[in-house]
Parts: sequence; C-alpha cells; structure tokens
Amino acid sequence: MSVGRKIGTIHGVGLGPGDPELMSVRADRLVRGAAHVAFFRKAGRAGRARAIVEGMLRADASEIAMEYPVTTEIPLDDPAYAACLSEFYEHVAARLRDIALAGEDVVVLCEGDPFFYGSFMHLYTRLKDDVPVTVVPAITGMSAAWTATGIPVTWGDDVLTVLLGTMPEAELARRMGDSDAIVVMKVGRNLPKVRAALETAGKLDRAWLVECASMDDETAVPLVEAGNRAAPYFSIVIVHGQGRRP
Amino acid sequence: MSVGRKIGTIHGVGLGPGDPELMSVRADRLVRGAAHVAFFRKAGRAGRARAIVEGMLRADASEIAMEYPVTTEIPLDDPAYAACLSEFYEHVAARLRDIALAGEDVVVLCEGDPFFYGSFMHLYTRLKDDVPVTVVPAITGMSAAWTATGIPVTWGDDVLTVLLGTMPEAELARRMGDSDAIVVMKVGRNLPKVRAALETAGKLDRAWLVECASMDDETAVPLVEAGNRAAPYFSIVIVHGQGRRP
Ligand SMILES: C[S@@+](CC[C@H](N)C(=O)[O-])C[C@H]1O[C@@H](n2cnc3c(N)ncnc32)[C@H](O)[C@@H]1O
Ligand SMILES: C[S@@+](CC[C@H](N)C(=O)[O-])C[C@H]1O[C@@H](n2cnc3c(N)ncnc32)[C@H](O)[C@@H]1O
Repeated sequence: MSVGRKIGTIHGVGLGPGDPELMSVRADRLVRGAAHVAFFRKAGRAGRARAIVEGMLRADASEIAMEYPVTTEIPLDDPAYAACLSEFYEHVAARLRDIALAGEDVVVLCEGDPFFYGSFMHLYTRLKDDVPVTVVPAITGMSAAWTATGIPVTWGDDVLTVLLGTMPEAELARRMGDSDAIVVMKVGRNLPKVRAALETAGKLDRAWLVECASMDDETAVPLVEAGNRAAPYFSIVIVHGQGRRP
Repeated sequence: MSVGRKIGTIHGVGLGPGDPELMSVRADRLVRGAAHVAFFRKAGRAGRARAIVEGMLRADASEIAMEYPVTTEIPLDDPAYAACLSEFYEHVAARLRDIALAGEDVVVLCEGDPFFYGSFMHLYTRLKDDVPVTVVPAITGMSAAWTATGIPVTWGDDVLTVLLGTMPEAELARRMGDSDAIVVMKVGRNLPKVRAALETAGKLDRAWLVECASMDDETAVPLVEAGNRAAPYFSIVIVHGQGRRP
C-alpha cells in the first residue's frame, strides 16, 4: 500500500422508522452526499430502506442492492440456512470492503436504529477491524409505534421489556406477566401467538397493535379490535406502563 | 368563541440524545421556526434541552423556562413532594394552554424521545383533551449509548430489558439475571447499587458505562474499569445481547 493512500469509510446510517422527516439531520446529509449507497432487500422486492430515501440520492450515486438469498423469516435453527446467510454476508461485506479499500465511502441504508436487531450488524462485525466504520443511531420502529398510540410508554420506574414474536408462547406469556411496559417486535404472522400469550398474562385488554408506524399506511388500534389475523412485517405490539405520575 | 377562531398546536418535540445533528429533520424544522419555545430546567441550571438547540432559535422567539420547584431526583414516595410537582405541572400546562388558545403554536423541547420516561408526558396528559398536541419521536439516550460502545445491543431473539437505577437492588439483580440484553437508565448516584446487582447476576464483566452519549464529553468504558463511584445524570449502563448471528 502506498504511503498516504486514502481508505474510505463505511457508514451504517439509521434512517428511522419510515417517515423521511424522521431521519436525523446527519443521516439526511450523509444520504444526500453519498457516491455509493448500499441496502438490503428481499429478492424481487423494492426494499424498505431504499424506499425511504427515494428522491434524495445524487443522480450519479452508484446503488448496491444486497439481495437476501432466501427469506429471512425462517428461524435460523437450520444449519444449512445459517451457512447460506453467512456466505451471503461474507460476500456483500467483501464487496463493500473493496470499495472502501479503493478509497471511496459507502453509505449503508438501515431501517430504524442499526444496532437494534439490525441486518447491518452482520456487516459491521465483518468489516470493523479492516476499514473505518461509523454508525449513525436512529429513531427505532418502537418509538414511532408508541408515539402512534398517543400514549406514553414508560413512567417513573416502569420496567420495559422488548420481546420477539418469534419466541415460544409460554416464554412470551411469562415475560409479559413480569413487565410493566411491553414491546413485541417481529410480530407479523406470529400475531395469533402474541395475542394468546397476552391473554395468558392478563394483558390483552391493554395491548395495542401498530402497523407501519410513521409510514403512509400507519395504523394503531387496541389489539382486541384488530381481529385474530396475521399482521404485516412492519408491526409492533405495545403494552403501556402505568407507573407513578404526579 | 367566534367562528373560525384559530387554536394553536403544542408540539412535544424530541431532540434526541444531545448531538444537534441527531435531531430529526422534522424537529430541526419545528425548532428553527418556533415563535414560542418551552423547556424544563432545574432551578439555577441552563437546561439540557435548551442547550441542544443553542444557536437554532429565531431571534424573536419567546422562551418559556419551566423551572422545577425542587430536584426531581427525590423518589416520589413522599406525598407532599408529589403534590408539589403536580401543582407545578398544572401551572405550566395552564400557561402553554393559554398560548395555544390565543392561537399560537408552542414547541416544547424534550430530551431524547418524549414518550420514553419523559417529563413532557406530564404536560401531555394535562393538555391533550383541550388543545391539539403533536409528539415528534426521537433518538433515545439508550440508542446513542449502545452506539457509543461500538457493539450491537440485540441479535436474533435477544430479549432487552430496560431497568432503572432507582429500583431496589434485589429486583435489579433478579431482572438482570433473566434478560439477554440490559439497559439501565437513571444511573447517576445509583451506580454502586447497579454495579452490585450486575455482580450478583453474574454480568458485571460484560457491562459498559456510557456517560453523556453523543455529547461533547461522551465516554464509554467497560464498567469494571469505571471505578466504584457516582456517575453523572446522563449515564446509562448497557449489557449487550449475545444472540444468534450467522
Ligand atoms: C429486524 S427488526 C429491525 C428493527 C429496527 N432496526 C428498529 O430500530 O426498529 C424488524 C422489526 O422491527 C419492527 N419495526 C421496525 N420499524 C417499524 C415500523 N415503522 N412500524 C412497525 N414496526 C416496525 C417490526 O416489528 C419488524 O418486525
Ligand atoms: C428522565 S429519563 C429521559 C429519557 C429520554 N426521554 C430518552 O429518550 O432517552 C433520563 C435518563 O435518560 C438517560 N439518558 C438520556 N439521554 C442520555 C444520554 N445522551 N447519555 C446518557 N444517558 C442518557 C439517563 O440514564 C438519564 O438518567
């Protein structure tokens, strides 16, 4: 490597929950200035992160669509599936590393906050020791979701537990029973299970279902009014805390 | 009331964790355009929310400093204290209500996300049935804190529990033992108790202390290196999840 050769930086940029006005000023600046923009998407889909920045990119920006080899909604229990995903992450990380080593910066578009259940984390761990990587935090989907309900989520000493719709029903119910405020991520087709767990925990009547928080098609309704159906990928269940308030 | 009389809107605007560049584009726009700006502060202090927007306000903006009658760090167990705080919130809510009823908008500056352990919630519940109130979600202090550690906070099906340094030590330890990822808010002078609870839960060696996340004086260190002392008001303890990762 020649002396003084410039190495580019990879920026993992959180875009927030969906509304472009909820991007941070820093994210807005990085996205508008980027020469290389990378984003995950499912094969054949537009990709939510890319959709958020529609109309914001430089005309000459090069776009790198990182297409998942298979759906990511399958549990990772299958070792063959995990190996396939691992190979995919290695491959796209190598592609971004090459751009950085050639001296160019890359902006990786991330839904929500990159370090909170984000796909970017799989690139971050593979790249951070080789090239400069920065991370821009962002508004999470859950912040947009509780805002959409019009009810504060935590008061005073309320404990908040973040659960996943992919967890076993009994564990969901146990943890729901043991928390003041609850957020359930990855609801989607797990909604009937999440609902049953809330019923067991005695909290179904206080739960809200928020779909597509801060997006054009945002809805927020008490869960008992939602019907026992699957929900879209972007859906979160919230139970608000009821802690002390003067 | 005369027909068509305009009523102003009260905007609870989350400013994020401290770095002005981490404000959302919407918050930035509302703050720069505001004719009336209200913010909480402790008597005799500058007020963190007001500090974040330094240099951004209109020259003719009217500023409403809402000064706490006493420190808010006393537990609310004392009924006299709760009554005093309640009277304070009634008083400032009435002041903002009057401005809105006179037809003017007010921007209330909020640290972090307004609906996540925020003081604005006490105004929100007192105002929302009388005048239009909007809430702009924001990047939380915890998002800035885990970003500062340089380590993703939750992977796969990791459960995240948000705890408060004000809780009893035994309850902290029990809940710490039962969660994959942990965030402890309101650490401050409770740091020795939080540390002891982490030790009981067997997680002290994995904990980080983040002070003033995203601010000029941000620090992030493994908790065992921090010394057994009090921490500043803006401090958070993090234990990262170790869930599945392909
Ligand atoms: C892989 S996680 C990514 C979380 C993201 N990094 C964040 O900070 O919110 C995907 C899950 O986030 C939740 N989610 C994210 N954004 C959302 C939104 N705007 N509305 C509803 N749910 C959302 C859904 O539960 C979805 O299953
Ligand atoms: C009353 S709560 C308000 C939380 C805020 N609404 C939010 O969304 O983060 C105050 C606590 O938040 C935490 N906090 C907020 N911002 C922080 C920051 N930038 N760095 C460290 N801790 C922070 C501290 O634990 C502090 O005791």
